[in-house]
Amino acid sequence: MAVYCIVVYDVDVSRVDRVHKFLRQYLFWIQNSVFEGELTAQEFREVVRGLKSIIDESKDSVVIYVLRDASLIKRSIIGQDKNRFSRII
Amino acid sequence: MAVYCIVVYDVDVSRVDRVHKFLRQYLFWIQNSVFEGELTAQEFREVVRGLKSIIDESKDSVVIYVLRDASLIKRSIIGQDKNRFSRII
Repeated sequence: MAVYCIVVYDVDVSRVDRVHKFLRQYLFWIQNSVFEGELTAQEFREVVRGLKSIIDESKDSVVIYVLRDASLIKRSIIGQDKNRFSRII
Repeated sequence: MAVYCIVVYDVDVSRVDRVHKFLRQYLFWIQNSVFEGELTAQEFREVVRGLKSIIDESKDSVVIYVLRDASLIKRSIIGQDKNRFSRII
């Protein structure tokens, strides 16, 4: 059982690199502070736990949009497609 | 006929304010460079046209995720909820 996630984050610049490196272990980088991809329930828990250990929850913000399936969402890109992955799904 | 949109943008700092001000006429600000909300087909076209006129398509990137309905997506927030709107949907 997996879900499709879009993760957007707004964290202090001192923690941006750690968040980026952590998320790319699980998800595909889309743009700036946006990642997406499929996660199993176990991976989802790992991502939440990992993010909580990296960010300062009193200052930073991460929003995880969770969908049952990637097919429920359509992606329109204006300007540059910063991620090649988005062309193949 | 309306759709639910999540708009994420990665644009040069010189254009960030204009993009922000433009999008808040149509959508709710969620975080940093993320907006979301319902758009009619007409509004969707206006948003795309407006963004194209503001950004530099050879450098900037805007991704619009389009869903049939807001109920298809679940939102998990870690840390700060920077937008009060997200608590009421």
